[in-house]
Amino acid sequence: MATQSSDLQTTIVIFGATGDLTHRKLVPALYNLMRKGRLPSQFNIVGYARRPWSDDDFREKLRAGVEEALDGEYDQAEWDRFAERLTYSRGDLDTPTDFEALQKHLDQVEGGDANRIYYLSTAPNFYEPVAKHLAALGMFKEQEGYRRLVVEKPFGYDLGTARALNAALHTLLDEHQIYRIDHYLGKETVQNILFFRFANAIFEPIWNRNYVDNVQITVAEEVDIEHRGGYYDGAGVLRDMFQNHLMQLLSLVAMEPPASISADALRDEKGKVLMALRSVTNNDIVVAQYDGYRGSEGVAPDSQTPTYAMLKLFVDNWRWQGVPFYLRSGKALRHKVTEIVIEFRRPPHRMFKRPRSASFNPNALSLCIQPDEGIHLSFEAKVPDTGGDLQPADLEFHYRDQFRESPIPEAYERLLLDAMLGDASLFTRSDEIELSWTLIDSVMNHLNNAGGPEVLNYPRQTWGPAEADARMSRDGRSWRLGCLHPDG
Amino acid sequence: MATQSSDLQTTIVIFGATGDLTHRKLVPALYNLMRKGRLPSQFNIVGYARRPWSDDDFREKLRAGVEEALDGEYDQAEWDRFAERLTYSRGDLDTPTDFEALQKHLDQVEGGDANRIYYLSTAPNFYEPVAKHLAALGMFKEQEGYRRLVVEKPFGYDLGTARALNAALHTLLDEHQIYRIDHYLGKETVQNILFFRFANAIFEPIWNRNYVDNVQITVAEEVDIEHRGGYYDGAGVLRDMFQNHLMQLLSLVAMEPPASISADALRDEKGKVLMALRSVTNNDIVVAQYDGYRGSEGVAPDSQTPTYAMLKLFVDNWRWQGVPFYLRSGKALRHKVTEIVIEFRRPPHRMFKRPRSASFNPNALSLCIQPDEGIHLSFEAKVPDTGGDLQPADLEFHYRDQFRESPIPEAYERLLLDAMLGDASLFTRSDEIELSWTLIDSVMNHLNNAGGPEVLNYPRQTWGPAEADARMSRDGRSWRLGCLHPDG
Repeated sequence: MATQSSDLQTTIVIFGATGDLTHRKLVPALYNLMRKGRLPSQFNIVGYARRPWSDDDFREKLRAGVEEALDGEYDQAEWDRFAERLTYSRGDLDTPTDFEALQKHLDQVEGGDANRIYYLSTAPNFYEPVAKHLAALGMFKEQEGYRRLVVEKPFGYDLGTARALNAALHTLLDEHQIYRIDHYLGKETVQNILFFRFANAIFEPIWNRNYVDNVQITVAEEVDIEHRGGYYDGAGVLRDMFQNHLMQLLSLVAMEPPASISADALRDEKGKVLMALRSVTNNDIVVAQYDGYRGSEGVAPDSQTPTYAMLKLFVDNWRWQGVPFYLRSGKALRHKVTEIVIEFRRPPHRMFKRPRSASFNPNALSLCIQPDEGIHLSFEAKVPDTGGDLQPADLEFHYRDQFRESPIPEAYERLLLDAMLGDASLFTRSDEIELSWTLIDSVMNHLNNAGGPEVLNYPRQTWGPAEADARMSRDGRSWRLGCLHPDG
Repeated sequence: MATQSSDLQTTIVIFGATGDLTHRKLVPALYNLMRKGRLPSQFNIVGYARRPWSDDDFREKLRAGVEEALDGEYDQAEWDRFAERLTYSRGDLDTPTDFEALQKHLDQVEGGDANRIYYLSTAPNFYEPVAKHLAALGMFKEQEGYRRLVVEKPFGYDLGTARALNAALHTLLDEHQIYRIDHYLGKETVQNILFFRFANAIFEPIWNRNYVDNVQITVAEEVDIEHRGGYYDGAGVLRDMFQNHLMQLLSLVAMEPPASISADALRDEKGKVLMALRSVTNNDIVVAQYDGYRGSEGVAPDSQTPTYAMLKLFVDNWRWQGVPFYLRSGKALRHKVTEIVIEFRRPPHRMFKRPRSASFNPNALSLCIQPDEGIHLSFEAKVPDTGGDLQPADLEFHYRDQFRESPIPEAYERLLLDAMLGDASLFTRSDEIELSWTLIDSVMNHLNNAGGPEVLNYPRQTWGPAEADARMSRDGRSWRLGCLHPDG
């Protein structure tokens, strides 16, 4: 594991520190990094938010989060050591004097040179004001240590707002200082897509239009919108899931081999995939709401916001021309599962005697992102004790079986560490964000047009609207999920 | 499962019926076929041998074998039904009058038209005499049902004797009536090689010299020669294992896709592989004896017979030019295991940061024939919770997990049924036998020449002589076993 390149103390300032993300994810991740000896020997964590908390209020809130995250492994003495580094600075997200107070607080805590991560865990409308106030006080200047800004999703609401935000940030600090988080990229199984493809010699030769029939990406949630109706109805599944997670998965699975895994080489290749996306038509889009969505608190009674979407995309380049990429995501679906299925073409020649009705099942490689992290490769095997009956079988790999010594960490651990190490490979560059919004905007335009795709309905606990299956059938295909057991 | 194409009664005549094979393998296999409803509704099993047994002696011997093979599932009433079909005809294997008696016995048992399988479970020197006596009595004529001759291994002792035996048999009956057994071909996992390769679209594209670095075939036995010194010292591992099993595995793994799986299409392709074998040189051969072999009963004190051999072969054709096939087999080795490993080339470009000493582990596909039937595909995976450490992981398939409902039958079930069905796909054709002996003869010639490879020694319970490993090292490779656990 890489260690910190500098002995300089490091301060993580969390804006919106009283929100859920801080105590549920960020601080447990930092705590684990400390336990693993991966934090700089000197570090400070400073919470910033509006509530009139004391340092001890702040610590107690975080302690509860860490205790829950550690699930039995919590150790009071260890926590006490960690808690000493935690302080709280009360302030409004758009009040200059509060930022001056924060600056004083930081100077006092640090007492000298320090690296700083500013982590924006706030509502998106505060990204720009916070950055502006930090810049106004010279707090992005890197003479006394690095200054990095981590920006949570969503980054923009559409192409226009994303561009405006990029432009605004670029006037305040350099692109190399900006770390746009898509926590999917911090997931082990997502990172492993790169290793699987490029540290092995046998998959790349068949990873193209000559052998691949289609690619399917499913990001299914079992939960509905819960109490987030107010936010969700303004966003919908396309902005909430497709613009970031699904586009990232698509670009990792479709990208050309980069020359290196440096942040820019990687992001250049991912960007090229997004640039090669063919414009969508009405026929490439299915959108729907689960039954009862419109009755939820915070949702407009005539809401047109999709909680489910399916897109059929084409990557118009030498490698993928003609290969459909089917993407789907939704809430209140039957199971929580994220997976990528590469479905290969059928064998060119059927030399085995088969019943007339039967055909070979095509091979499929399933990259299982969550919850059962692993890889499944389905193939046709001879059923024992028959003359030549075939049945699909799976070559299976499960992280939890084969890497028992190395449990899978939370995505935020990786991302926070990388931000401290200055490795932006797993963060999204401005051009990726904008290219991705370009696609989502065009889909939204189709939805808003008269004659555009209708918002359908689907029962909860299903795999979405019947039309999504019908669309596949009309293409002579069907949705596959290789990571779930057959009863799924 | 295919059923019998004819309602005609079928008689299986076993020559050498008092030997081990009959009660340990053949009759339990026939018994299982009956239980599964795969035998013709009318069948007779007739034992023929020199011992003065009664029908009941014969039945009792076989009953014990079936009871042991069924391992708890034995049912007395079921056995009684089966036992009615068993009779014994005493006779010498080279005495014409005894064959006349057999003919009468058969006419009596059958009482009309019948198909007949003559199964030669005798010492090899009786193959020709038995066939001659049967032919002399017109017992290969197929007017009243088919007449098929099943010949056990070894088929010949070298190319000359194999050719002579083929020639002699061809004067007595047609090639289509001859079923030469290599029981390895009856193993489910061996049959599945064909299905794996040709019912799936993703392996064939990388199954060639562009992607494969080398192929390794291991047939390792844990047992030594036990009490078979008399036979074994005259044969040795090359005749006992290479000429048949290893050559068959090699041809299945290296063959071109046949147009169909008809017996002749399949055997044409297998023969083409054997025809393309490059002549071996001294450097392609390692032979050895396990410590203590020469002290065994029946073994000459100065025996030069190898109990272990390693061959490095090349298949000089468009697909395999330059790809070495490393074959090894031996007795008294560390574990009983039969597997084929396809080791692929390393990735062309190392884009991941790695310690200077480390290199990618090449991918390897292991076809596990026995004892843990399955398939393992090793690949490089990112070790969770590291920046980019790689470690080999396995995609695994185990028959016993995924085909719980279809336990793997003994090889002889498949082969006896196929012989009755007239499907010779899993039997060896005369040209295959002769091509295979051509190779083995040339190896034997090297061994017999002055200046030829020396017979080395190896300790029991190891993987053979150190020279076999050294030979791989000099090629920049090492023996791999993907089916055994790491402690193997």
